[in-house]
Amino acid sequence: MTTPTTIIGSYLSPYVRKVLAVLHLKGIAYRIDPIVPFTGDERFSAISPIRRVPVLIDDQVTLSDSSVICQYLEDRYPSPALYPAGIADRARARWLEEYADTRMGDVIIWQLYNEVAINPHVWGKPTDPVRLQKTLEEDLPRVMDYLETQMPSQGWIFGELSIADIAVAAFFRNAGFARWQPDPVRWPRSSALVERALALDAFERLKAYEHKTLRTPIPQHRAVLGDLGAPLTAETFGTAAPRRGVMAT
Amino acid sequence: MTTPTTIIGSYLSPYVRKVLAVLHLKGIAYRIDPIVPFTGDERFSAISPIRRVPVLIDDQVTLSDSSVICQYLEDRYPSPALYPAGIADRARARWLEEYADTRMGDVIIWQLYNEVAINPHVWGKPTDPVRLQKTLEEDLPRVMDYLETQMPSQGWIFGELSIADIAVAAFFRNAGFARWQPDPVRWPRSSALVERALALDAFERLKAYEHKTLRTPIPQHRAVLGDLGAPLTAETFGTAAPRRGVMAT
Repeated sequence: MTTPTTIIGSYLSPYVRKVLAVLHLKGIAYRIDPIVPFTGDERFSAISPIRRVPVLIDDQVTLSDSSVICQYLEDRYPSPALYPAGIADRARARWLEEYADTRMGDVIIWQLYNEVAINPHVWGKPTDPVRLQKTLEEDLPRVMDYLETQMPSQGWIFGELSIADIAVAAFFRNAGFARWQPDPVRWPRSSALVERALALDAFERLKAYEHKTLRTPIPQHRAVLGDLGAPLTAETFGTAAPRRGVMAT
Repeated sequence: MTTPTTIIGSYLSPYVRKVLAVLHLKGIAYRIDPIVPFTGDERFSAISPIRRVPVLIDDQVTLSDSSVICQYLEDRYPSPALYPAGIADRARARWLEEYADTRMGDVIIWQLYNEVAINPHVWGKPTDPVRLQKTLEEDLPRVMDYLETQMPSQGWIFGELSIADIAVAAFFRNAGFARWQPDPVRWPRSSALVERALALDAFERLKAYEHKTLRTPIPQHRAVLGDLGAPLTAETFGTAAPRRGVMAT
């Protein structure tokens, strides 16, 4: 029996969400171990040396880093293609994925989502209003202004749906959890693209898991999320107690 | 006339070094604009939205992010191949490149090189002995311990020379500038691989430029480094004054 494709990572991570969307679009069956960022014991360090989620495990690899995982899935399961066929467009798609993972990761996850959701609800640390205001008034608009220059007037960024659309859209679910969404008058192309992308079944079907995760205390994630029909791995990599040091990528 | 391949970035950046090594190994002629990290005006922001070096400009693309650039060069100039042919090995090579760029970047550039070289010599800020000691006694050994598990007993990591060997080795030049090198008794495989890689002409030929850069005050970099035979771009993207906010990738 071959090892099924397993993803270790939380439904709330935009990096995990990107990988799950790619798996779905390519029709690859998978199971998920819904580890929570900031948790995970030394066995997790062994399979993810920088303590990142997601990790993909299958019969051939144990990989971390969502971009490396998505490129692996494209190489191994080339159809349907999620990277543009043209070499220059493919490079530009990878750049937009990198921009999303790095810059949108900083602003939407570490500044916005962290201040509004993680700090108060996981660490018991109140939201920093000055930091949040700077994020909302300066950093987020700058990200959106750049995105707007890259987005198409209709359809997908490179004609066909690609990793760039998926990577960018994935972050707006977390922005939504923090009660922020882009102004469709100020950023019409970006807003429309994100709306189109998040309406795809690849994202839509994850919403139930995301909402359930948001409502479930961390120590119960594995048990409760198993009830939603995502089978768990036999091995466990997590501990119940939150722990700093997992970087989401 | 086609646009020649231009790289914007400092010879002291391990990310620039990686790209220059790939260009050399693939026999691609290029010219370099030796911009210094922490410099660059608004025109630089326009071509590098996260203010990163290197940037590659050719007749088809303007790209930042060294990993995206190297993969573009592989796609466009496939011979000699610098990514393993096997899908699983290719994924593992990309992961090692990511590990180098992220984790070794944090430890060797931001902690070690920054404390020993950049802070005192660029910002006039003394080295923090506590931070440096932690880097030397904890973080660097942990990086080396992990690398040692990934390195081959001889030859290259995936048989043929690949992006993984190049990405890992590139950081050890900066470690050397900070007067640190790995103990060959404690980490024999890693030490030997790095020595083999840095002896390649692709790296060896850059040493004169690196040493000249180290000895040249920042405002004179463009003028002086032009003398070494690397033609400059017609346009300029930098200002003379150091400026925070360029991330090297």
